[in-house]
Amino acid sequence: MIIDIHGHYTTEPQPLLTFRDKQLAGLADPMRRPATNDLGITDAMLRESVQPQLKLQQERGSDLTIFSPRAAGMAHHVGTEETGKVWSRLSNDLIHRIATLLPDNFAPVGQLPQHPGVPPKNCIAELERLVGLGFVGVNLNPDPSGGYWTDPPLTDRWWYPVYEKLVEFDMPAMIHVTSSCNPNFHYTGAHYINADTTAFMQLIQGNLFKDFPALKFVIPHGGGAVPFHWGRYRGLAQEMKKPLLTEHLLDNVFFDTCVYHLPGIELMAKVIPVDNILFASEMLGAVKGIDPETGHYYDDTKRYIDQVETLSGEERYKIFEGNARRVYPRLDAQLAKRGKPGKAA
Amino acid sequence: MIIDIHGHYTTEPQPLLTFRDKQLAGLADPMRRPATNDLGITDAMLRESVQPQLKLQQERGSDLTIFSPRAAGMAHHVGTEETGKVWSRLSNDLIHRIATLLPDNFAPVGQLPQHPGVPPKNCIAELERLVGLGFVGVNLNPDPSGGYWTDPPLTDRWWYPVYEKLVEFDMPAMIHVTSSCNPNFHYTGAHYINADTTAFMQLIQGNLFKDFPALKFVIPHGGGAVPFHWGRYRGLAQEMKKPLLTEHLLDNVFFDTCVYHLPGIELMAKVIPVDNILFASEMLGAVKGIDPETGHYYDDTKRYIDQVETLSGEERYKIFEGNARRVYPRLDAQLAKRGKPGKAA
Repeated sequence: MIIDIHGHYTTEPQPLLTFRDKQLAGLADPMRRPATNDLGITDAMLRESVQPQLKLQQERGSDLTIFSPRAAGMAHHVGTEETGKVWSRLSNDLIHRIATLLPDNFAPVGQLPQHPGVPPKNCIAELERLVGLGFVGVNLNPDPSGGYWTDPPLTDRWWYPVYEKLVEFDMPAMIHVTSSCNPNFHYTGAHYINADTTAFMQLIQGNLFKDFPALKFVIPHGGGAVPFHWGRYRGLAQEMKKPLLTEHLLDNVFFDTCVYHLPGIELMAKVIPVDNILFASEMLGAVKGIDPETGHYYDDTKRYIDQVETLSGEERYKIFEGNARRVYPRLDAQLAKRGKPGKAA
Repeated sequence: MIIDIHGHYTTEPQPLLTFRDKQLAGLADPMRRPATNDLGITDAMLRESVQPQLKLQQERGSDLTIFSPRAAGMAHHVGTEETGKVWSRLSNDLIHRIATLLPDNFAPVGQLPQHPGVPPKNCIAELERLVGLGFVGVNLNPDPSGGYWTDPPLTDRWWYPVYEKLVEFDMPAMIHVTSSCNPNFHYTGAHYINADTTAFMQLIQGNLFKDFPALKFVIPHGGGAVPFHWGRYRGLAQEMKKPLLTEHLLDNVFFDTCVYHLPGIELMAKVIPVDNILFASEMLGAVKGIDPETGHYYDDTKRYIDQVETLSGEERYKIFEGNARRVYPRLDAQLAKRGKPGKAA
């Protein structure tokens, strides 16, 4: 089984987007508020909406996508905490329904109703609801301000109530920002990558996993700049008298393979231990075109991994499936229950 | 000749640091203001202060370092525009004196008295002064706020007056932030790398070099995350209907080799055209330790380049010398005048 751990629902039915427009328009003019939270989205509409993803799964040879709401759509900095709660709930509900309709193709990951300056503990009600619905993880935004970075670093106790719950529920968090309202940062080209790099460096500086040895973070987009600057990060940790990165962070921090060219994936495979690499494509995500240098889609990342000749069969199994089952234990349990245990089992 | 294009004066004599303390203390208590701008730093003190750099040049086999004030010391967000002007001037003067005392070892690059929210054109007086003193380039801070990114992107007309002068004087700018006052961003581990990535993405989005075809930017630290995500950037440019990155940016944008492990340098050599790679070590900079995996200093970047077997002799010449002469034409002219022309001449 090939598990793609990073897919966003970027083909949402129009009524969801219309709702959001009305909801935000309603902040300026209460007359424009949506009349109802019932979006009128049928199961048929949901199935229809994910045909592009299903087609690509088949064409590219992946089986299951860990699926969450559109990352840029979370927009925690937009509106109020209250509109964010409603918006998160509606967005998560669609993911839940898709994963229920197509459990062999999608596993649900949720967004949290974060809001800049508001304690993350306010998200716990939604987090608990997601657990009840069978979600296997959440996206955690390290910068709810949308590009101004005005909340505390991820190592601050500000975030601890959420971490306690994540550990309790055996759920990993993917560290994923949303859109940027700072004109300096293009969202997929700068903000996402910077956030990945920033989060990793915060974790080097802190000792978060001393307090939460069972907490697991996935840093997407190949870990931002981290593998490319692996020597810098090893050296900085050393100067700070931290343990080796393998001991300090790599029991808890994992990287996905959303890196859109072979040399990048080759670098990852060289410097990041194979136990910390999880296959992902960010399918229907940041970069949709065909690479003129290869004739293939940039985001067909499975092809790059297939081309890394140094990987053994066992290592490929880890990247494509085994690590995902380990990092997302609730997914592993669900799969086992449906007669699809992992290799070890 | 081997030219290291990225060195900062991180071994400043104590009187400079004492001055800065008094200057900033003077903002709170005018009684503590420095009595004089005469630091009392002798030529002997300057020579003594750069012995570590000279020793490393000799040990590692480089000849000339393009040398600028401590990057984190610029701290444009600290104090007032006025203290920044005095501070820049004093810092630049020391660089000038060192390059005058040891012209075979150091070529001067200056800091600009930028200040958050203040138009960059206010830096022109200092820029013109630097030209008169024989400086060959400047460091330009894309985020004078120190980690909150509150000024406009580099493609905004806000910056144009400085670009006009840089073109007039045939000077490149290294895009280099300073320290971070945002607790989210470690300076050398996140803020520097993010700024590199951010600047490159801003340049993809804009058309700056249509307006300034002769403007040259050096993006340090290997270009941040850019080479690792070269596929992403090629793909994003393509989606934005921009020309190929080689045409859109690479006549004007150059990357240094401050990447502290061999796999990173190998990746750069694979994806970045050799004409756009300039040797640099950030010597006495971000990462000072010895890599236990190699037994050598992390920042001895020449060793990594020496190990990239695919580079021809001509390509090595470009990386170590030729490209630096092309990107820093004022340096090339100075060297030629002193009987050290480049290969082409």
